[in-house]
Amino acid sequence: MNKNKNTLSFPDKSNSWDEVTDIVVIGSGFAGLTAAIEARNAGTSVIILEKMKAIGGNSIISDGGIAASETKLQKKFNINDSKDMMYADMLNAGDLINYPELVRVVVDNANDAFEWSQEYLGVEYLDRVDQFGGHCVPRCYTAKNISGATIIKKLKEKVEELGTSVRLQMYFKSFIQDSEGRVCGVIVRENYDYKNPDSGRDIYIKAEKGVILAAGGFSSDIEFRMAQDPRLTEKIDTTNKPFATAQALKEALRIGATPVQLSHVQLGPWASPDEKGYGHGPEFSEYILFQYGIIVDPVTGGRFINELADRKTLSDKILSVGHPCVGIADSKAVSESGWSIEKCLKKGVVKKFNTIKEFAVFYNVSYENLEESLNVFNKSFEEGRDKCFGKPIIDNAKPIMQTPFYGIRLWPKVHYTMGGIRINVLGQVIDLEGKVLEGLYAAGEITGGIHGASRLGSCAITECLVFGRIAGKNAAKKLS
Amino acid sequence: MNKNKNTLSFPDKSNSWDEVTDIVVIGSGFAGLTAAIEARNAGTSVIILEKMKAIGGNSIISDGGIAASETKLQKKFNINDSKDMMYADMLNAGDLINYPELVRVVVDNANDAFEWSQEYLGVEYLDRVDQFGGHCVPRCYTAKNISGATIIKKLKEKVEELGTSVRLQMYFKSFIQDSEGRVCGVIVRENYDYKNPDSGRDIYIKAEKGVILAAGGFSSDIEFRMAQDPRLTEKIDTTNKPFATAQALKEALRIGATPVQLSHVQLGPWASPDEKGYGHGPEFSEYILFQYGIIVDPVTGGRFINELADRKTLSDKILSVGHPCVGIADSKAVSESGWSIEKCLKKGVVKKFNTIKEFAVFYNVSYENLEESLNVFNKSFEEGRDKCFGKPIIDNAKPIMQTPFYGIRLWPKVHYTMGGIRINVLGQVIDLEGKVLEGLYAAGEITGGIHGASRLGSCAITECLVFGRIAGKNAAKKLS
Repeated sequence: MNKNKNTLSFPDKSNSWDEVTDIVVIGSGFAGLTAAIEARNAGTSVIILEKMKAIGGNSIISDGGIAASETKLQKKFNINDSKDMMYADMLNAGDLINYPELVRVVVDNANDAFEWSQEYLGVEYLDRVDQFGGHCVPRCYTAKNISGATIIKKLKEKVEELGTSVRLQMYFKSFIQDSEGRVCGVIVRENYDYKNPDSGRDIYIKAEKGVILAAGGFSSDIEFRMAQDPRLTEKIDTTNKPFATAQALKEALRIGATPVQLSHVQLGPWASPDEKGYGHGPEFSEYILFQYGIIVDPVTGGRFINELADRKTLSDKILSVGHPCVGIADSKAVSESGWSIEKCLKKGVVKKFNTIKEFAVFYNVSYENLEESLNVFNKSFEEGRDKCFGKPIIDNAKPIMQTPFYGIRLWPKVHYTMGGIRINVLGQVIDLEGKVLEGLYAAGEITGGIHGASRLGSCAITECLVFGRIAGKNAAKKLS
Repeated sequence: MNKNKNTLSFPDKSNSWDEVTDIVVIGSGFAGLTAAIEARNAGTSVIILEKMKAIGGNSIISDGGIAASETKLQKKFNINDSKDMMYADMLNAGDLINYPELVRVVVDNANDAFEWSQEYLGVEYLDRVDQFGGHCVPRCYTAKNISGATIIKKLKEKVEELGTSVRLQMYFKSFIQDSEGRVCGVIVRENYDYKNPDSGRDIYIKAEKGVILAAGGFSSDIEFRMAQDPRLTEKIDTTNKPFATAQALKEALRIGATPVQLSHVQLGPWASPDEKGYGHGPEFSEYILFQYGIIVDPVTGGRFINELADRKTLSDKILSVGHPCVGIADSKAVSESGWSIEKCLKKGVVKKFNTIKEFAVFYNVSYENLEESLNVFNKSFEEGRDKCFGKPIIDNAKPIMQTPFYGIRLWPKVHYTMGGIRINVLGQVIDLEGKVLEGLYAAGEITGGIHGASRLGSCAITECLVFGRIAGKNAAKKLS
């Protein structure tokens, strides 16, 4: 209770502010930096707090994929898509428990945010459109270098161009509220050292217009994620950095923010147990395997799912198999995908084989059963559909028969936390009574409800940019 | 924030207690009264608070079904069951996100609690064992009069025999914590009038040993349930009484209790839109229709699910059909079930028909398709299994052909909230840091994690008795 008591007793010492600014942004990932840029452009003073020694949070290690409909790139590649189609895909993946009004805001503003990142920030994307699991058409764009760092770099440059910067090693400890309960500042641990948490000293920063919470998710917080889904023990790896904890989220809950759908934690089905963290395997899985190849259970040699199913369906299914599964694609798939798998091969997470036999021996799969699975799947191309599991046939996909073949082992990792604190369409945090929690805004993974039970690939960066912009603009207006 | 501030500023006026007792119990349903009995038997003074003008909360309107394995009644009817089988059923229904250690406590103590209710409280149960959806064997017992009131009456008698009683119209407003954050009392609105919330006055009650939260679920709290599952608008009815709100739960969250799996709200698939609230239709659905009959989509006349699937599967499926479905059973099913449907017929929620044709005309189902669905299902009895949907064939079930036939319309209602606050195996409330929230215990529907994503029928009363007893005993010991 101490933090809570600090928070509430603070008005007594309200003459002891160490710093005063219009807006405090907690977190320096996609959402935080985007919010800071819009707040600066609205003419307010902004302090951006980052607890680590480097900026970017988890955003910087993401693969830089962003989803949007009705884009110029889709037009260029003659892809028919619409905001309503993207809206329907997000709700279907989310088991229909998403907040419809928030999903609507994301899809309606997705292309604006995507173009803003190109035209205003200067982010460059690969000249391609991908269809990731759960999306009904190709709708996913990838930043150059296939890395969120490409976007973070541009956001950082813009933040500095606008005359502010990210304060590193500033650990957010708790909110300060005035006598009416309005969030009016924060207590921060200065010179925070991740390895030595008690280092540094506490300072009080006043936020005249508001605080924007953009501290990310809690995939690495084993205690907190297990409280929501007890299956997610330390035995399940995560694609996130170790600092992706629930600390800031818990502070919001302590002052009465409404927790939303916290038990929906996303596992990445494209992850491989043969490397740590996110790694490089996911590139092969998403850009090649899921679209062109098949996944089999090594024990049976048989397929068991539509490889383009959404992440939740795919992860739950692989987990239910009970052991790592094996994916296979051929060299035709690699060339058609236009994707380089050099890194994957160099890291050894993807293996190369001259024959199906070699593949079967290496992964200890029954050769006959694997052959049969491939033959049945390859018939899909004559028949125009995957009779067994209803996997959509990608336009330029071909039967799997072109040597050499490529393989990967798959086992899910904790990737994203759909749940978080409740916000409204204006990016304002909502309290337990359903009312606006004055002075507090939020954007990005720390918020809940946008993705429901399961987030579609590439929709996170879209959400961070769309709601980061909204929160930044509205905090600057001091809406509440 | 006012409540929160009251709570924390209270120590200033710690000389102004209106009453002092060892233990305060919030709620007078199964869990609350059970906890009070154990606390009294441990020699402590107990004050039981009930906000309404009558005791029993929602428990009193439940159908009085309780589940337990390895019971005398199962032995009598030669039913092979085990704690491990019940444990597995609860976890499977819960999508495996249940807290395993809490489920273990429930199944290990279920038969003790069931026998305690008979031998110590004197509750009488019907001489039968039922198999409700999701249970792999018959394991469900029903209190006489098919009503939770039968159990509440005995609990009330015992509470009074032990020299305490339920204080009615006492509305719990907030917790009081000491300077270390330990829950040491409550603020209560006396002479509370549900229709006139501002009536009455606030009093402060000190709880020397602890406060036991047994305030139930939030199925009737449209604002709060929609925050967790936006589909649950005012357009979806509930089986609960209107006072089943999240108010006490929110107070626990305000002092840092961990929210667990709040977005998992259970819909009752056995409910009928042709009556308000829980009604009588569920008796026909659970004891006869799901076990012996079939459910069809009136538009197609076809079956679409194993009628003995767990509640979540069944409800989600009916909701996804998009309109009320129709259930049919014959008079043979009624006689085999040993169940009287007089009330259902009298209320008009279940209808009687002399022919399938009459049934089809009344519910506007294609007669041919319904006939075909019945014929295919009836073949299951020769074939020994339901080829289409894998519904288990109940031992004494027969083909559906014996006139007269009975029908009911089905549309889910909000029935139970699986989520709530986090507790440990000792019934202590756990805070956001994973530590015991000293002085606070909880039991019953207000707790989360025991049922995971979906509660099996009849496991709620089991949970209330098992954890009510644990919380009462441990609060009396002042464990924390």
